[in-house]
Amino acid sequence: MVGIAGDSASGKTTLTQGLVEALGSDRITAICVDDYHRYDRVERKGLPFTPLHPACNYVDVMEQHLQLLALGQPVLKPVYNHGTGTLDRPVLVEPSEFVIAEGLLPLHTRLARACFDVTVYLDPPEIIRRRWKVKRDVAKRGYAEDEVASELARREPESAAYIRPQRAHADIVVRFAPIEERGETPDDPLSAYVMLRPTIAHPDLSGVISEDTRKAAHLKLLRDEDGKPVDALHVHAYAEQSLTERVQRALWRALHEPEPLPSGLGRLGSEGRSEPLAVVQLLLLFHLFQARGGGEVVRATATAGVEPQPLSS
Amino acid sequence: MVGIAGDSASGKTTLTQGLVEALGSDRITAICVDDYHRYDRVERKGLPFTPLHPACNYVDVMEQHLQLLALGQPVLKPVYNHGTGTLDRPVLVEPSEFVIAEGLLPLHTRLARACFDVTVYLDPPEIIRRRWKVKRDVAKRGYAEDEVASELARREPESAAYIRPQRAHADIVVRFAPIEERGETPDDPLSAYVMLRPTIAHPDLSGVISEDTRKAAHLKLLRDEDGKPVDALHVHAYAEQSLTERVQRALWRALHEPEPLPSGLGRLGSEGRSEPLAVVQLLLLFHLFQARGGGEVVRATATAGVEPQPLSS
Repeated sequence: MVGIAGDSASGKTTLTQGLVEALGSDRITAICVDDYHRYDRVERKGLPFTPLHPACNYVDVMEQHLQLLALGQPVLKPVYNHGTGTLDRPVLVEPSEFVIAEGLLPLHTRLARACFDVTVYLDPPEIIRRRWKVKRDVAKRGYAEDEVASELARREPESAAYIRPQRAHADIVVRFAPIEERGETPDDPLSAYVMLRPTIAHPDLSGVISEDTRKAAHLKLLRDEDGKPVDALHVHAYAEQSLTERVQRALWRALHEPEPLPSGLGRLGSEGRSEPLAVVQLLLLFHLFQARGGGEVVRATATAGVEPQPLSS
Repeated sequence: MVGIAGDSASGKTTLTQGLVEALGSDRITAICVDDYHRYDRVERKGLPFTPLHPACNYVDVMEQHLQLLALGQPVLKPVYNHGTGTLDRPVLVEPSEFVIAEGLLPLHTRLARACFDVTVYLDPPEIIRRRWKVKRDVAKRGYAEDEVASELARREPESAAYIRPQRAHADIVVRFAPIEERGETPDDPLSAYVMLRPTIAHPDLSGVISEDTRKAAHLKLLRDEDGKPVDALHVHAYAEQSLTERVQRALWRALHEPEPLPSGLGRLGSEGRSEPLAVVQLLLLFHLFQARGGGEVVRATATAGVEPQPLSS
């Protein structure tokens, strides 16, 4: 079970959808914990906080439901309708082999965090997130651009108080951003900076990233903004696609999966594609498979007579 | 925590409301488990079963929520709107000191039954229940009398298959009925036949029912319809009210409650009153207080210097 936290329009749904497409919705169950909103849009107008505030959400019920899903039990999940702003009839969610819970506050409490095998925080630069939020809320939720801007301002104190502190609790922090040293702008394809905290066992990337593929991705020992050491994986958007695909195939083989690399990874909306996104998704698949216990798949591979291939091929 | 099962219009709400009024809604939380309907009224039209069928309900989620409430945790309870026949936004239910769960299927599964300290099945004669159902559904739910009759016929096989088997799992079976030996009809005030199964510790009624009050209530060793021995308490509606009230006061004192006998017990709708109903409600209060552990209240009584009074006074 993976928990993905991040502010509004930080890329949670895009990251999640690629995983669902890769594994198929019969193998992976995705829920959005923003459905645990306590108030509908009309009720919120009279309240002194935004949906980012824990008091605006049934955090205790979210915890319960995450625990139940982690135990393989179904939950009757509430539904917040983003189109109408109403709380609708709940839906039954039955957890399949893997579960993703994404949203604003999945890592807010200790009990919620304890449900996850791997936790992720999406941490785009604010300038990128604003662009994403304006684009989505204007196109899909019927807001005007200045409404989105004033809402962002209104939410800022609660983002600082409740959303961003979740970063400290994530096993993996992901930042999609342009590479400033190369003079890139937010209009360029975004590279991924992936901080791998030593809180869980990450894949051995020394085998995945070879001398040949250094242009596509490299690993660096860094200090995080809090001063703590982390392994930082940098996946370059400017690299040739064929090079990044080699990294992806190597990561996939590290999972001992007999199937070919799934499609759907790296998809951006209906048209676009991001190789760094695909690499991040493969890392999450690694953790999902590891949490489930990869033994079965390895045995199946051996039975089928498929030999592990050299990592740099 | 008490579970009250029974077919549609068997008197569950009336029994429950008296308990809520007696203790106050800050001390007792009442939920209706029919809110766990899986389908709304429109969806049910195309289905081969009625709301009495377990497949028409989220029985597994009901079990979960009963367990959570039993542990003192809040639940986000679904809501079935009897007025519109729709499934509406869920509501947060936080269990108070006591909890009542009433409805069609609260005793259907072992796990649900395990949540209750005392279980009740309401078992009115079918002729009485039909009258109650027609009266309510025509007055409050906008149905015509012949619609109610055909719905009763349609539900009968599922009532036999799923509702009535719960009777076997109840600690207390209550039947409000006229006394045929006295030539009473359903229009007369109804007496209560209360079967007290030896599955839980009932109050010592030998002290409550004295020679003086035999006309109001008596206790008899009987064989149930399944052949098993039960203590049957019979509370006579024809007895003088003052006599039945003595039984009630004696039962109340047996609870070691320092407060006076609460009002609200025995209330039938906005106007009527039933002394046998009040006695049944007092029996349930006995079990609720006993489950909570009566010690505190007894100590409070002693501190206040209130001596237990002789039971027959």
